[in-house]
Amino acid sequence: MIQIDTSRRTIGLNFLEDGSTEIRLWAPYASKVFLVIKKKLDPIEMEEEEFGYWFIQTDQIKSGDEYGFEIWNEKKKEKYTSNPSILRRADPAALFFKNGIGEYSSACNVNDFKWTDQNWKGLAQKDYIIYELHTGTFSPNGDFISIEAKLDYLLQLGITAIEIMPVAQFPGERNWGYDGVFPFAVQNSYGGPAALQHLVNACHNKGLAVILDVVYNHVGPEGNYFNDFGPYFTNKHHTPWGSAINFDDADADPVRHYFIENVLMWFRDFHIDALRLDAVHAIKDLGAQHILAEIKKYTDQLSAKTGKLHQLFVELDLNDNRYINTLTKGGYGMDGQWIDEFHHALRVAAGQEKNGYYADFNGIEHLAKSYETAYVYDGQYSPHRRKTFGIEAEGNGGEQFIVFSQNHDQTGNRMLGERTSTLLSFELLKLLAAAVFCSPYLPLIFMGEEYGEENPFQFFISHTDKQLVEAVRKGRKAEFAAFQHSEDTPDPQSETTFKHSKLNWEWLDQPKHQLLLAYYKNLISLRKSNPAFNHLNRKQVSASAIKDQNCLI
Amino acid sequence: MIQIDTSRRTIGLNFLEDGSTEIRLWAPYASKVFLVIKKKLDPIEMEEEEFGYWFIQTDQIKSGDEYGFEIWNEKKKEKYTSNPSILRRADPAALFFKNGIGEYSSACNVNDFKWTDQNWKGLAQKDYIIYELHTGTFSPNGDFISIEAKLDYLLQLGITAIEIMPVAQFPGERNWGYDGVFPFAVQNSYGGPAALQHLVNACHNKGLAVILDVVYNHVGPEGNYFNDFGPYFTNKHHTPWGSAINFDDADADPVRHYFIENVLMWFRDFHIDALRLDAVHAIKDLGAQHILAEIKKYTDQLSAKTGKLHQLFVELDLNDNRYINTLTKGGYGMDGQWIDEFHHALRVAAGQEKNGYYADFNGIEHLAKSYETAYVYDGQYSPHRRKTFGIEAEGNGGEQFIVFSQNHDQTGNRMLGERTSTLLSFELLKLLAAAVFCSPYLPLIFMGEEYGEENPFQFFISHTDKQLVEAVRKGRKAEFAAFQHSEDTPDPQSETTFKHSKLNWEWLDQPKHQLLLAYYKNLISLRKSNPAFNHLNRKQVSASAIKDQNCLI
Repeated sequence: MIQIDTSRRTIGLNFLEDGSTEIRLWAPYASKVFLVIKKKLDPIEMEEEEFGYWFIQTDQIKSGDEYGFEIWNEKKKEKYTSNPSILRRADPAALFFKNGIGEYSSACNVNDFKWTDQNWKGLAQKDYIIYELHTGTFSPNGDFISIEAKLDYLLQLGITAIEIMPVAQFPGERNWGYDGVFPFAVQNSYGGPAALQHLVNACHNKGLAVILDVVYNHVGPEGNYFNDFGPYFTNKHHTPWGSAINFDDADADPVRHYFIENVLMWFRDFHIDALRLDAVHAIKDLGAQHILAEIKKYTDQLSAKTGKLHQLFVELDLNDNRYINTLTKGGYGMDGQWIDEFHHALRVAAGQEKNGYYADFNGIEHLAKSYETAYVYDGQYSPHRRKTFGIEAEGNGGEQFIVFSQNHDQTGNRMLGERTSTLLSFELLKLLAAAVFCSPYLPLIFMGEEYGEENPFQFFISHTDKQLVEAVRKGRKAEFAAFQHSEDTPDPQSETTFKHSKLNWEWLDQPKHQLLLAYYKNLISLRKSNPAFNHLNRKQVSASAIKDQNCLI
Repeated sequence: MIQIDTSRRTIGLNFLEDGSTEIRLWAPYASKVFLVIKKKLDPIEMEEEEFGYWFIQTDQIKSGDEYGFEIWNEKKKEKYTSNPSILRRADPAALFFKNGIGEYSSACNVNDFKWTDQNWKGLAQKDYIIYELHTGTFSPNGDFISIEAKLDYLLQLGITAIEIMPVAQFPGERNWGYDGVFPFAVQNSYGGPAALQHLVNACHNKGLAVILDVVYNHVGPEGNYFNDFGPYFTNKHHTPWGSAINFDDADADPVRHYFIENVLMWFRDFHIDALRLDAVHAIKDLGAQHILAEIKKYTDQLSAKTGKLHQLFVELDLNDNRYINTLTKGGYGMDGQWIDEFHHALRVAAGQEKNGYYADFNGIEHLAKSYETAYVYDGQYSPHRRKTFGIEAEGNGGEQFIVFSQNHDQTGNRMLGERTSTLLSFELLKLLAAAVFCSPYLPLIFMGEEYGEENPFQFFISHTDKQLVEAVRKGRKAEFAAFQHSEDTPDPQSETTFKHSKLNWEWLDQPKHQLLLAYYKNLISLRKSNPAFNHLNRKQVSASAIKDQNCLI
């Protein structure tokens, strides 16, 4: 088996110091594999290694060149899911697609970038104050360089980290990011890998950390050719997106290797400080070493080598602190998790109708509970889930939980994508912010929240497959059956939906919005300066609800 | 939700002290439920409780009476899997079927039995020396009372516990026991619940412990009407037997309750000392509290109340010590596990061809490893499984592993069911026994092994559904494709197959078999008397293999 080397990637295309490249591809279904370089005539045959890997070292590729693979399948035809016996495919571990998704990947030398963040060693976990943003809608241009232009604004706001929604290459130019199909590639319409490196470097030089949202529980539906290479998926487990990624079935080792390399790449080659791992409850792994635990081990090895701090935060719908307990305690070693239940309790306390997943929350009393125990359901019967749910998060510090009054999901998962600013009174907006920043947890705000952005954040895609577009439209409509809306669902494929979801920074010309921004700045400043708010010792927090006054002390 | 009470069952039929009975049934799909008592005219309507339970207290039932339910489904028809709108069904938590499986269960008062084992407090885990037996084939009559007749023989042999293959009511009279469909009922052809209590009482009075094999990973295919009552199964997970038992999906609480009550019943009402939980890797539970951990908690509560020791041993194909680590270490708290890999390494060392699952084992070197580390694969690539497999069993004592040179599976899973006695030389039989009894683990022998029984132990069933019988026959043949046999598979449905699998105690008239028995007695005696063999400290064991001499020191 190929050994993981924390100092360099062992899959995909890597530039060596002499300017040549080595390329390794896992394609166990192939009988032959050829490297194809665009604008060069002859494909070059690759050498077969053990366990279905193919390798070549060549001086024929320069940074920026486009390359791909020709994979032959005479011998193992029965394993193929597509028809042609010779397939042209881009590199599943490619870093760049300068012309978008197609048969060719673009060679990228991650070592070309000249980092100037040598003094940055990462952010202590307790100091995270997170600003979640979506690159495509944060600015009019929707790219990384436009984020850089706002860094001073974010610094003045007081946040300590930006969290970037997924940037893995997806089809088209409009997507939340969870439909990415090349987990190693940085979306070309955002500026590609070099622009991401430039942004991270700029953040570090201003004292800001960078969290990147990554998706290891599924691969997007369009442009997903993994089944042509090998058993990346397994029928042993299922997820809302179909067959699960193969983390524990036969031939899982190279798949695990692929995702571990992905984690290491973001930390090592892009200087990302922390990852936000999307919906890890949909990562199905019943083997003796959970893939998250293995990711933690390699992350620790890398940190030990570089001396830089890195955190692994997970989105988790299980109220199971096994995920965030240390490896020595039998946990999976994740550093922290998003805690949606705090949000749900807070929003119901602020008047949110108890429909859909809000049905389980009674408002102020559950909010009080969440202040003390993080999980609201830690062993009680949940009517919405129709089962006893969760366990007590004993021994987990407040810095292991990330809370918010809204985020991309809670906003965008509303049919109309309304932010709190258009749902609640100005005074309630301030109260919600205070509830988040006075909690013994890590606070997160969703881009624009700080000044009361009034544009919605709706669900948008830009697929080219018409059937898929129709399926997404239908799915989106069906999703809101439980919420009993009467209005029309915005068309996710329409560019208008995307444009409506962009921040409109001109709100800041208005006094009301300036006032809210000033309030957020003061609140963040208070949290940073007052030990009562930045010592995240949950045991020192006592919350009491006075139900008939909807009041929390 | 109905609360579990360790002092008495809260589901099924229970006799109260005044001679009346209370009956509780979980049937959330029903619109009405009636209690039907055979030979009485009018069904009695039951009262609906919360969460889909139905209850009645009545003085109309005496011990031995046959009863069942009439379940109506006008309102919730869409949930039904069977056609009729009124169904007649036996009690899924019944203890007895005096006439075999049908529409009526037999009322059984577990408190009728007069126990005389008050001085028995259970067996310390390190002292288990286990004799696995199958009730139907252990004796000519194939029942519990015939086992009692052999207890003195077993005592003289030196074993300290019998392990009884599953006794849950199955269709017909011939079955290994893994096709049981009423987990609370004791097979009528074995003698039913009272005869099992009698056997356990007799064992305890002779100083023998009793382990019962229970199946919580699936329900047998014939006579399985669980889907008529409620969501006992879930499509969320799959097992080799189809949809998994619902331990973590919506409405899982009453299903978990059902199996926890089952555990408590065997310990409390049948005085069983330990359970052997079949194939727990097929128990799928991704909730925050694994069902095994919850079973452990209730078992501990019961032990605290009664002062009796109870152990939970699992069959596990994962090499994952999370299952056998304590709850405080983040484990599921099981006390021990069967360790098939010791067997596989031992058998390959003794000349077993490396086909099927034996392909992963190199013999003497792997055996040496298993002596020191229990798991052979504890993080290495397994060619047979095509993935890296297992983790190191750090911190687990030798008493947590049960080893053997054959068991019902390893014998019966051979196409012809040959025991080692007909496969290996007499000298090798002795060597294998020594290998097991000198290990730092708990030894297990399979009935008849001690005298070299030469009859096979083949796979047998007695279903009435012809299609099912044909499917089992085909499946059995397909199973041996990997082992490349040329002979015919014995017909599992044939009574001849069953009869051929019975022990023939007349072998003991022959000197060769007497000699082997004497050898086993001496070996067991040596193990019991010599501290080197009964201190199960794995750290004091050093095993070295001399490969070219196939020798282990």
